[in-house]
Amino acid sequence: MELSRKELALLRALATRQGRKKSGCCRCEGLRAVRELLAFYPEKVKFAAVSESASGVFECAPELLRIVPDKLFSEISGTVSTQGIIAVAQIPPEASGEIKGNFVLALDQLGDPGNFGTIARSLRAAGEYELWYTKGSIDPWGDKAIRSGMGVQFGLNLRRFETLEELALAGVRMGVKNVFIADPHQGESCFTCNALFDRSIIVIGGEPNGVKGAYPDARRVIIPMPGDYESINAAQAATVLIFESVRRKMN
Amino acid sequence: MELSRKELALLRALATRQGRKKSGCCRCEGLRAVRELLAFYPEKVKFAAVSESASGVFECAPELLRIVPDKLFSEISGTVSTQGIIAVAQIPPEASGEIKGNFVLALDQLGDPGNFGTIARSLRAAGEYELWYTKGSIDPWGDKAIRSGMGVQFGLNLRRFETLEELALAGVRMGVKNVFIADPHQGESCFTCNALFDRSIIVIGGEPNGVKGAYPDARRVIIPMPGDYESINAAQAATVLIFESVRRKMN
Repeated sequence: MELSRKELALLRALATRQGRKKSGCCRCEGLRAVRELLAFYPEKVKFAAVSESASGVFECAPELLRIVPDKLFSEISGTVSTQGIIAVAQIPPEASGEIKGNFVLALDQLGDPGNFGTIARSLRAAGEYELWYTKGSIDPWGDKAIRSGMGVQFGLNLRRFETLEELALAGVRMGVKNVFIADPHQGESCFTCNALFDRSIIVIGGEPNGVKGAYPDARRVIIPMPGDYESINAAQAATVLIFESVRRKMN
Repeated sequence: MELSRKELALLRALATRQGRKKSGCCRCEGLRAVRELLAFYPEKVKFAAVSESASGVFECAPELLRIVPDKLFSEISGTVSTQGIIAVAQIPPEASGEIKGNFVLALDQLGDPGNFGTIARSLRAAGEYELWYTKGSIDPWGDKAIRSGMGVQFGLNLRRFETLEELALAGVRMGVKNVFIADPHQGESCFTCNALFDRSIIVIGGEPNGVKGAYPDARRVIIPMPGDYESINAAQAATVLIFESVRRKMN
């Protein structure tokens, strides 16, 4: 099927936050991301635009497929070297209800879409669900965040809050026992702190200054670094903490 | 001081692997990377080119400083939105001699400079030193690898091999007891394998197919992923393994 004029306009509009808000949809670009999306959340997919050159390597239900001339495609694409496939999908409603899994990972003013996607994938691989964030963080449904996250966003419970304090208080109302802030300089060791994954919130901030927001009752947790060089980024820190939870689950 | 014509030519040449090989130097771009370089390895720095707009925020010994007009600077810079500082530094000779630290992290055909830099920083933060790699991996002294690694390359023992087998055999000759290959699908759990960091080599491959090279006596190690989604990248996998070594050191 050919791409309609309306669909083309939608594809273009979805590059902006405003366009996503208006339509309730997002763009999911890249072969792997779209395959995952179709495998796990087929009901969310509106259609998949595929460039003529890429139409041989990608298969999906014919009623979803839209073949697009290469030149037009590269104009629509958000990447420099495109893989030739973008799906348009419905953004799920924001999570509500009970906390699922063992802990909440919270991002405070995390502005980098690459870090966001990496963290989302670590969380999903670890079998956890709750990814909360404050105002000033990247839009999880933006092009780059989806590419980097390869669409795992669709399987997570994303919840947005104005401030870290509001986020923490909402957690406490839902039965959270402790709020931990990952601190690059001081705190309990993440490897020995017993309460770390027991109905808790773990807050990660944008690098390199850690968490900007405040919550008076928060405990501090640190990733020990024996090297003389402290420079792992927010995504690496989150991955270490998330897989420490996996290690404990396995033992 | 002004940038000489020779220095300008060098800055341009260092964007290519050939230029680096010929001169034995590399380019280190970004405020933080250059600051670290000057703090830890000042003897390696030949000079630092700073754009006129950035000259207020950066301080270094006047004999190293070269002020460059903004327009020329953005032409030299490898980034889209430049921070306005590039240092030219001597590439250290390839590491030789004994293995330093508890284990070797080896990269088999890892082509992504972002992943390379992330892994280098995790290793350095963990207080380890040996980062080996095979042909087909990214040049550790390329622009992007240095930006992503923030210059930690200078503090690591980097060693290059033609194949994974040569790498493994060299390790065994130097007293390595076990070679572990990180495998996305099967193997001993990285959280319970006792020998994992005991004079071993741990091999990480480019995503998503894992390690391409072979070594007959290698053991397989897996990062358990309870989620229904296996999609952490090479840098995340390496970070999990590296910080598991930190956890054991701390206990």
